[in-house]
Amino acid sequence: MGELYVALIHAPVYNKNMEQIATSITNLDIHDIARAAITYGVNAYYVVHPGQAQQDLAKRIMGFWREGYGAEYNPNRYEAFERVRLASTREEVITAIKNDNPGKRVFTAATDARLYPNTIAYTDLRSRLENTDDVFVVLFGTGWGMIQEEMEKADFILQPVYGYGEYNHLSVRSAAAIILDRLRGH
Amino acid sequence: MGELYVALIHAPVYNKNMEQIATSITNLDIHDIARAAITYGVNAYYVVHPGQAQQDLAKRIMGFWREGYGAEYNPNRYEAFERVRLASTREEVITAIKNDNPGKRVFTAATDARLYPNTIAYTDLRSRLENTDDVFVVLFGTGWGMIQEEMEKADFILQPVYGYGEYNHLSVRSAAAIILDRLRGH
Repeated sequence: MGELYVALIHAPVYNKNMEQIATSITNLDIHDIARAAITYGVNAYYVVHPGQAQQDLAKRIMGFWREGYGAEYNPNRYEAFERVRLASTREEVITAIKNDNPGKRVFTAATDARLYPNTIAYTDLRSRLENTDDVFVVLFGTGWGMIQEEMEKADFILQPVYGYGEYNHLSVRSAAAIILDRLRGH
Repeated sequence: MGELYVALIHAPVYNKNMEQIATSITNLDIHDIARAAITYGVNAYYVVHPGQAQQDLAKRIMGFWREGYGAEYNPNRYEAFERVRLASTREEVITAIKNDNPGKRVFTAATDARLYPNTIAYTDLRSRLENTDDVFVVLFGTGWGMIQEEMEKADFILQPVYGYGEYNHLSVRSAAAIILDRLRGH
């Protein structure tokens, strides 16, 4: 059985005009994806931002639910936040995951609403998760998506999520939930 | 081919102590579920709240993206919001949908994180959507879920969304995305 991790990349990503930016960490990206991550047995959810002030903000948000009143008010949220980690770069994430999984192969799988060549089907990645002992890190971009150079560094690129027609402008929160369900739902 | 609608119920729902309340309309519930709804070919997404002030708030949020600067800045959001409707009660939603689909059978399918008897599998509802001309309205509860009496009024109750273990405290935004993908994803 493989191990599954997710990372939400805040930089470098594109803005609407395809310029490279860092997006802000948002409260609901942390909450929604943490809850989806624990639902689908994700080992850890990395929130990736190079800015210290932004990491401090994320710590404050999670601190409320992990200590004192918040933890008592909603223990389910406490449980979800136990698996959230902060990191400055994607490389830092991969290093930490390799350290936590000595001797195992670690692969990255990037996601995007754009169509890239050589994408992997959800059923293929699901099968690798079920039938190997490898470690898979699914990378989600914020803003208008991860920059092309970062996409191309990934070992796999997952197909865009399509529904019924051509529209595929889901929020990253919705896309993460759907992709985790496709990889590990029952 | 069947027709699909969704409704987000803000009242009556349970709070944490299983008391009946009305929850507030939130910006991101409107955005995320509208974007998922259009992705999966949902005919209309009803935001259901009995309070006029809350409906006015929802109108202001959507107005920004449907007119002037917002519509120009992000036409995808404009497109998603074209299918959002406001209603005071679930009954009002069903009446409107019956008027829009004369001669067709209209069924409701409630969703909940709790396990109810006589639930229907996602594959069953998906098959009815693909193979009949019936109309299906999927009802999502906010807060701690739709009250039992309202659940029991539904024609179908969908199984809770399970992932990998016992934890199933997804946000309603994530649950709606996953359920639409299960019913109409490719």
